[in-house]
Amino acid sequence: MTKRIDLNSDLGESFGAYTIGRDAEVLELITSCNVACGYHAGDHNVMAATVEAALATNTAIGAHPGLPDLIGFGRRVMQTTPEDVYNFMVYQIGALQAFLNVQGATLHHVKPHGALYNMAAKDAELAASIAAAVKAAAPGAVLYGLAGSELVAAGRAHGVSTATEMFADRRYTAEGILVPRTEANAVIHDTSEAVQQVMQVVKHGTLTAVDGSQIALHADTICVHGDSEEAVAFAANLRRELEAQGITLLAPGKELNA
Amino acid sequence: MTKRIDLNSDLGESFGAYTIGRDAEVLELITSCNVACGYHAGDHNVMAATVEAALATNTAIGAHPGLPDLIGFGRRVMQTTPEDVYNFMVYQIGALQAFLNVQGATLHHVKPHGALYNMAAKDAELAASIAAAVKAAAPGAVLYGLAGSELVAAGRAHGVSTATEMFADRRYTAEGILVPRTEANAVIHDTSEAVQQVMQVVKHGTLTAVDGSQIALHADTICVHGDSEEAVAFAANLRRELEAQGITLLAPGKELNA
Amino acid sequence: MTKRIDLNSDLGESFGAYTIGRDAEVLELITSCNVACGYHAGDHNVMAATVEAALATNTAIGAHPGLPDLIGFGRRVMQTTPEDVYNFMVYQIGALQAFLNVQGATLHHVKPHGALYNMAAKDAELAASIAAAVKAAAPGAVLYGLAGSELVAAGRAHGVSTATEMFADRRYTAEGILVPRTEANAVIHDTSEAVQQVMQVVKHGTLTAVDGSQIALHADTICVHGDSEEAVAFAANLRRELEAQGITLLAPGKELNA
Amino acid sequence: MTKRIDLNSDLGESFGAYTIGRDAEVLELITSCNVACGYHAGDHNVMAATVEAALATNTAIGAHPGLPDLIGFGRRVMQTTPEDVYNFMVYQIGALQAFLNVQGATLHHVKPHGALYNMAAKDAELAASIAAAVKAAAPGAVLYGLAGSELVAAGRAHGVSTATEMFADRRYTAEGILVPRTEANAVIHDTSEAVQQVMQVVKHGTLTAVDGSQIALHADTICVHGDSEEAVAFAANLRRELEAQGITLLAPGKELNA
Repeated sequence: MTKRIDLNSDLGESFGAYTIGRDAEVLELITSCNVACGYHAGDHNVMAATVEAALATNTAIGAHPGLPDLIGFGRRVMQTTPEDVYNFMVYQIGALQAFLNVQGATLHHVKPHGALYNMAAKDAELAASIAAAVKAAAPGAVLYGLAGSELVAAGRAHGVSTATEMFADRRYTAEGILVPRTEANAVIHDTSEAVQQVMQVVKHGTLTAVDGSQIALHADTICVHGDSEEAVAFAANLRRELEAQGITLLAPGKELNA
Repeated sequence: MTKRIDLNSDLGESFGAYTIGRDAEVLELITSCNVACGYHAGDHNVMAATVEAALATNTAIGAHPGLPDLIGFGRRVMQTTPEDVYNFMVYQIGALQAFLNVQGATLHHVKPHGALYNMAAKDAELAASIAAAVKAAAPGAVLYGLAGSELVAAGRAHGVSTATEMFADRRYTAEGILVPRTEANAVIHDTSEAVQQVMQVVKHGTLTAVDGSQIALHADTICVHGDSEEAVAFAANLRRELEAQGITLLAPGKELNA
Repeated sequence: MTKRIDLNSDLGESFGAYTIGRDAEVLELITSCNVACGYHAGDHNVMAATVEAALATNTAIGAHPGLPDLIGFGRRVMQTTPEDVYNFMVYQIGALQAFLNVQGATLHHVKPHGALYNMAAKDAELAASIAAAVKAAAPGAVLYGLAGSELVAAGRAHGVSTATEMFADRRYTAEGILVPRTEANAVIHDTSEAVQQVMQVVKHGTLTAVDGSQIALHADTICVHGDSEEAVAFAANLRRELEAQGITLLAPGKELNA
Repeated sequence: MTKRIDLNSDLGESFGAYTIGRDAEVLELITSCNVACGYHAGDHNVMAATVEAALATNTAIGAHPGLPDLIGFGRRVMQTTPEDVYNFMVYQIGALQAFLNVQGATLHHVKPHGALYNMAAKDAELAASIAAAVKAAAPGAVLYGLAGSELVAAGRAHGVSTATEMFADRRYTAEGILVPRTEANAVIHDTSEAVQQVMQVVKHGTLTAVDGSQIALHADTICVHGDSEEAVAFAANLRRELEAQGITLLAPGKELNA
C-alpha cells in the first residue's frame, strides 16, 4: 500500500488592516488548509480571498472555527456549554460554506482552532457537540482532531469521517499524548529530528516516546505553520523529505488524480 | 385573482444576555420573518432558537444581514465598498443557512437591514452587490426591497426573484418614495389610516400620496414590528383587517397549502 | 456605635439599542452603584447617562470592570494572565473616571463583575492584579469584594481600602463561604428569611450557616439587583426594613451629611 | 526666534496577536506619539506597552481616539451624533489617561484618528464635540488638527491649545487645503521634494500650491508613518534634514530641557 499523508495549515487568520501568516507561500506546500471563520480571526473579506487562493492551488478547504475571542486569538480557555459550542460551530461552518458555494466548491473538512481544539481533545461532552455540529452542518466533511483525542472518538461515535493529526515538532509520552508545553522537553527544536519523527509515523505507524519506548501512532495529517520564515522553511523541508521518500501528499479522503 | 400579501417582521435581534422584541407573539401574526445574522444584532444561539421557533409556526425564514455595527444596531450609514458588501452578505447568508440546513429547511428570502436597506434603496452599485450575493449564495431565495428602490431593480437585473415592500405607517410622495422622516407628515400615527393605506395598495395597487394624487404602488409584503406592545397590537389589527377583507396572507412565492 | 450598611447595585449594563435593568428605580433605593465599563456590558453613551443619573441621586459611583466578553455578559470563566487583568482593569477604570472627571466627580469604588469577581474570590494571583490596578489607577477608591475572599485579602495587603460584600439571598457554609449554586439549598427564596439574615449580620456580625452553627461575618455592603420587578421589590423591602431598624444606609467610607 | 517643529506618529495600533507598525524604530525619530485607544486599533495590553516605551524615550504621549470600527481600522466614514462623538472621545481619552496615571505621567495631546480626523476637518459640529470633549476630559492637553481645519477652529473657540498638522508628502491647493487623493497629483512621491516642502513651511511659513502660487501655512507638527521600511526611512531622512538645518524638534507646548 502506498503511504500517504496530508499537510495542513491554518490560513486566513488576517483581520481587517491586520495581516498575519505567509498564506501564499504556505499554499504551495500543503494539501489542505483550515480557514478561520471570523470568531477568533479572519473576516468576510479574508475568507473570500483565502477560499479563492486555496481553490487556485487545488488545496482542500476546511473550516477552522474558534472561540469568540478575537483579542485572545481563540487561544484562551473559555467556559462554554454544549449548546453554545454546537451553535457557534454551525454558524462558522455555514459562513465558510457560503464562500465555497459561491465558487461552486464544497467543504472538505472541519478542524477546531486553538483552545477549542485542545479542550475538545480532553472533554468528551464538548467533543460530542463539535462532532454533532459537523455531522449536521457539514455532512460528508472530515473532522480533524488530535490523534488519540476525545474529539476523534466523538467523530467516530457520530459516524463522521475523521483524520488524526500529529505534531511534527512535539514530543509524546508513552501513553501517546503530547508532553505538556510546561515541560522542558515538550518541543523538538532540531528540524531533522522532527522530520525523522514524522517519517517513522508515516512509514511504520510508530513513534519513539520521551521514555524511549516505541508506541503506535497513526496520523492522517500533520499541521505545519506559516507564521514565520522558519516555519515555512521547516514545512518546505518536511515536504521535500516526504516526497523524496515516496510518500504521497494528499488530503484525507481524496483520491490521486481525482 | 385572489389578493394576497405577506406580513414580514425582523426577528432574532436579541444578543447574549440582551433581549429585544416580542418574537413569540409576532410569530403568530406574520407569514415571513427576517432573522438577524450576528453583525448588527443576533448571535449563534439566538439564530438557532429563532429558526426553531419560525419552523414551529411554519413561518417563511429569511436572512436579515446588516452592517458590522452591533453598538449602532446597523442603523448608521457606514462607508463600504461593493466587494465588502458582497462578502459580508455571503458570510451572513451562509451563517443563517447553516441553521436551516441542520433542521432540513431552506432559506426563503433575504432582506438587508436598517442602514444597509436604506443605502441599497438609492445606491445602484451597492444594490448590485447585494443582488449578486443573493444570487450566488442563496439561489432561489427572494430578495425583499423597498417598492421602487434600486435594490428591487438590481434584483430583477440579476434574475433574482424580488418582493416589494411597503410601510403601513409611512406616507409617500407623488413620486412613490417615502416622505423623509425629517418631515412632519412622514409617519401615519392613526392606526385605521395606516390599515386603510394598506388595503388600498393590496386591493387596488394604488396609494394616496401626500399631495392627494393617486399613484400606482405594488406591494408584495408589509413590514410590521414587534418591539413594543403597541407595535404588536397594530400588527394584530392589520392582520385581522386583511383576513376580514378576504386577503390571503402568504409569503412571496409560496403556494397555499404547499 | 451606629450600625451602617451600604446597598450597591450593578447599573449601566445596557448596550447600544439593548436595554437591561431598571436603573432609574434602583437608584432610588441604593447608596452605591457599580457602572459597567464597556467590556462585558455598557457603552460610552450608557456610561455618560448612568454617571449623570447617579450624581443626580447622590449615589456613590464605582467602576464595574469585567472580562472582555460582551456575548457572555462577563459571566463565563476565561483564561487570563495577571498582566492582562491588571491592564484591562486600568483601561476600564480610566474610561469610567473620565466620565466622572467631566462632571467634576471622583470614583468612589471598584467592584469586579461576574466571573472576574468570582475568580478573584479564590485566585490570589488574580486578586493581587486587581488590587494593584485599583491602587495604581484609582488611589483612594474602595475595593468591593466578597466577604472572606482572596480579593479582600489582596486589597488589604496592597493597602487599598476594602468593603466586604454579602449576598442577602444566598446561604453560607460553616466556613463562611457561599454554598455553591449547584447545591439545592444555595439560594434563600423566602424574602423575610433573606431580610432576617441581613439584619443578623448588620446588627450582630453573625450569620446562621447551613449546618445551624453561628459564624462571624462582617459585611460593609449588600448587593441588590434591578433586573426584574421582583428584584426591585426585594431591594425596596430590604431598604425599608433596614431603615425601620435604625440602620444607617451609607456607602463605605462616606460620612453622614458629607 | 528659533524655528521648531514636532514630528508625530500613530503608535500602539497592534491588537491581540496582530502586530502592526515599527513602533520601536519610530520612537527614536519622533517627538510626540498618538496612541490608539481600543476602538479602531490597540488594546489594553498594547496601550500599556506603548505608554511605557514612549516614556522610556521621553516622547510626548497623546490619545488617538477613533471610530468604533476595528474591522475597518477607523478609516471608514460612519454616521455619528455630536453626543456619541463627545462620549466616545471621553471614554478613549480616559482609558489612555489611566495608563499614564499609573506611570505618574500626564496626557500631552489628543489627535483624532482616520475617518474621524477627516470628518472633523470639515464638519464644524463634529469638531465642536471633539473640542468640548478634550477640554472637559483632558484640560491642558493640546488638540492636534489639520492646518486650516474646522477642528483647529473648534479647539480655539473652546479655549483649547491647538497644534496644526501638515502632511509632508501631500500637495495643497491655493486655498491651503489638501489636494484630494482622488486626483493624480495628490501625493508627493519624491522624498527630497517632500522634505523641501516641509523646510519651506518650517522656515518661512509658506508653501507652493499645485497652481504654483505661494500660500501661507503654519504647521506645528508633521505626521510621519511607521507602517513600512520606506516610511521609517523617510521619517529618518526628514529628521536628519531638519536637524541639519538647525530646526528644533520639540512637541507643541514643550520647552527645551524641560
